[in-house]
Amino acid sequence: MSAPFSDPWQIFPAGCAIAPLDEEARARALARINDQTKPRGSLGRLEDIAHRLAGMRFPFHVEPARLFTVAGDHGVCSERVSLYPQEVTRQMVANFLAGGAAINALTWASGMDLVIVDAGCCGGPFADERVIDRRLGEGTDNIAHGPAMSMETCCTGLRNGIQLALDAVAAGYRCLAIGEMGIANTTAATALYAHLLGLSVAHVVGPGTGIDQDMLAHKADVVRRALVVNARQLAANGESPDPVRALACLGGFEIVTMAGIILGGAAAGVPVLVDGFISSSAYVAAVLLCPLAASYCFVAHASTEPGHVLALQKLGHNLGDASLTEPLLHLGMHLGEGTGCAAAYPLLRCAVAAYEKMATFSQGTVSDRMPDETGGSACLS
Amino acid sequence: MSAPFSDPWQIFPAGCAIAPLDEEARARALARINDQTKPRGSLGRLEDIAHRLAGMRFPFHVEPARLFTVAGDHGVCSERVSLYPQEVTRQMVANFLAGGAAINALTWASGMDLVIVDAGCCGGPFADERVIDRRLGEGTDNIAHGPAMSMETCCTGLRNGIQLALDAVAAGYRCLAIGEMGIANTTAATALYAHLLGLSVAHVVGPGTGIDQDMLAHKADVVRRALVVNARQLAANGESPDPVRALACLGGFEIVTMAGIILGGAAAGVPVLVDGFISSSAYVAAVLLCPLAASYCFVAHASTEPGHVLALQKLGHNLGDASLTEPLLHLGMHLGEGTGCAAAYPLLRCAVAAYEKMATFSQGTVSDRMPDETGGSACLS
Repeated sequence: MSAPFSDPWQIFPAGCAIAPLDEEARARALARINDQTKPRGSLGRLEDIAHRLAGMRFPFHVEPARLFTVAGDHGVCSERVSLYPQEVTRQMVANFLAGGAAINALTWASGMDLVIVDAGCCGGPFADERVIDRRLGEGTDNIAHGPAMSMETCCTGLRNGIQLALDAVAAGYRCLAIGEMGIANTTAATALYAHLLGLSVAHVVGPGTGIDQDMLAHKADVVRRALVVNARQLAANGESPDPVRALACLGGFEIVTMAGIILGGAAAGVPVLVDGFISSSAYVAAVLLCPLAASYCFVAHASTEPGHVLALQKLGHNLGDASLTEPLLHLGMHLGEGTGCAAAYPLLRCAVAAYEKMATFSQGTVSDRMPDETGGSACLS
Repeated sequence: MSAPFSDPWQIFPAGCAIAPLDEEARARALARINDQTKPRGSLGRLEDIAHRLAGMRFPFHVEPARLFTVAGDHGVCSERVSLYPQEVTRQMVANFLAGGAAINALTWASGMDLVIVDAGCCGGPFADERVIDRRLGEGTDNIAHGPAMSMETCCTGLRNGIQLALDAVAAGYRCLAIGEMGIANTTAATALYAHLLGLSVAHVVGPGTGIDQDMLAHKADVVRRALVVNARQLAANGESPDPVRALACLGGFEIVTMAGIILGGAAAGVPVLVDGFISSSAYVAAVLLCPLAASYCFVAHASTEPGHVLALQKLGHNLGDASLTEPLLHLGMHLGEGTGCAAAYPLLRCAVAAYEKMATFSQGTVSDRMPDETGGSACLS
C-alpha cells in the first residue's frame, strides 16, 4: 500500500508530494514519552497522536487550526433518498454564514477557524464573499443514471482541495479539518464505500438524517443502481478500484474537494482531522490514491451511521494498521459539517501539551519502577 | 434507588442536600435541542450532556472549572501490589507542584484550574502552601489486616470533600472534576467494587500501573483477604452494602475525600467530572449513598483497567439508567490524576456552545423535514 504515488492526472502541483512520516523523529518522541512521569502507555491514544505528530513537518504544532466545511448538491437527491429537500444545502450555507449551525458553535468552543467552501450548490454562486467559491457545477448529475461528474471535473475538484490546503498551511495553519454539507450525500458516500472497499451495500447503507426502513431499502436500491449504471466506467482501469474514477462516477463535489484537502494537508505535512460518514468516504478515496496520506489523518469520531466504522475497519485492514483509521471519539454523533472534528480537536491540543510539558523520570525527581532487587524503597521496608 | 437520603453520619452541613434535576427545565431544553438546525439527535451525547446541564442549578454554566487531584497513601502498599514504591505518591505531589505531571499539562490545555489536596500522604504535611491540607493520617492502615480507617475518619474525609466542593462553587466554579494519586490505590478500588457492586474480584482486578500475571494473582488474593478480614464490620448494617462502612474498611483517604467532593458538587448543583478506575470507586460509593448525585456526574473516560467499564455498567444497571454511567471518552488511558476529566472537559464546553449558539427551525431560515405531501421542494420538483 505504500508504493510511491504516480500522478497520471497531475492533481498535485509540480514539486508537491506527500512525504512519509519521519520515523526517526517518531522513535525519539516515543522514547521521551516512555520516560515521562506516568506509567508507560497510560495516556493511551494521546500518546499515539503525539508520536505521529512528531513525524510531521511541524512537529507538535496543531495551532492554529482551520476547518473547511465544503458544500455541494447531489443530483441523486431527485431519487428521494433524504428526508430533507435539496434547498436545505443552500439554506445551511446561509446558516453557517449567520453563525447558527452546529459547526459554528463547536469550532468556536474548540478554538478553530471555520471556512465555508461552495464546491457546487444548486442556485448559483453565493453573493457573500466569505464563501470560498470553488464551484464545480450546479450540483452533480444523478449517479443512479450515470457518472456524478466528468473525470476532468473530478480532477479539478481534487486540485482545488489540494490548493486550499496548501494555501492554509502557507498562511500559518498547522492543523486542517474537513466537514461537509450536501443533502443526499450519504447516498454518494455509501456507493463509494461499496465500490472502493468491496463492502456490501446492505451493510453500508444507513439512515442518514433519519429515514425509515422502507426509504432505507429504496436508498440501497438507488446505490445498487448507481454501481450498475457506472460499472463499465468504474472498471475501465482494470481489477482494483480506481479512486479517481470512483469519485467521478459516484462522488460529490464536496467529496472530491475534501479528498483534495486531505491530500494537500498531507503534502504540506500537517495533521488533518476527518469527520464522519461522508468525510470519511473522501478519506478512503484519498488514502487509496496515496497511502502515505493515511499517517497524517486522524478520524475524529465514529458516526452512528452503521457503515462508518465498518468502512474504517476495512481501510485499516487494507493499510495493515487498524489503529490508523480508528476514530478518536464515540459520541453517537451523525451531523456532519465537521462537528466531530471540532469535538476531537482539543484532544490534539491535549496530546501536544502532555508531550511538551511533562517531566521525565530521567530528571530524577520521581522514582521509576521498583528495582528488581528488593529493598531501598519505603514500600518494601 | 432515588429515595431521599437520610444522613445518620451528618456528613452534610445543616441545610445542605442534593436536589433532583429540574425535569421541567430539562424538557424545555430538549424541545429546543430538537428544534435546532440539525437532524434530530445528531449531536449524540453532546445533547445528553446539554439537557442534563439544563436541569442543574446554574443551567449551561461549566466555566470556570476546578479539578481536584487528591493524594493519599495506602497501608496495603506493603503487600507489594504495585510496581512503584510508596514514596512515589509524595514525589508525584511534588511533580504536580512543579508543573511536570500529565495533569498539569492537560488542565492547562483544557483551561481548568488545578488544585492539589493532601488527604494523607506518608511523610507528613507538605511545606508548600499550594497543597490543600486535608490530611486524615499518615496513609491508611493495611486493608489486608483490617479497616483502612475508622468510621469517624471516613466521615471526616467525606465532610472535607463536601466542603471543598461547596467552597469552590461559592468561589464561582461551575464545574468540578476529581482525580487522584496514591500508590496501591487500584487495590483499594478493586475491593470497593467487589463489595459495593457484588462483582467478582477476578473480574475487577487489573494490572494498575502494569504488573505481570503473577503479581496480578497476588493482588487479587490481597483483595480477597481484605474482604474476608473486614467482612464482619462491612456486614454490620445488614444485607445491602453500606457505602460509608465500605469506604472506611476498604477505601483510601483520597477516595473518601473524592466521594465527598462528588456529593458536595451535586449538593451545590454543579456538574462533576469523574476520572478513571479509582475515582470511579469514589463515584460508586457516593452514588450508592445518595443516588440523586448520579445525575450531576459525568464519567469522563473508560480506563483500560478491565474492571472499570464492568463496574460502571453494573452501577448503571442498579440505577436503572445505563446512559448515566457511560464514559464520554474511550482513549485507552489509565493514568489517573484526573487526566481523563481534563481530556473530556472540552466536550462539556462543546455541548454548552451548541445549545446556546445554534439557530432553530422555528426561526424559519432552514427547512425542516420534507412535508408529507410531496411537491413544494426543489428536491421533488
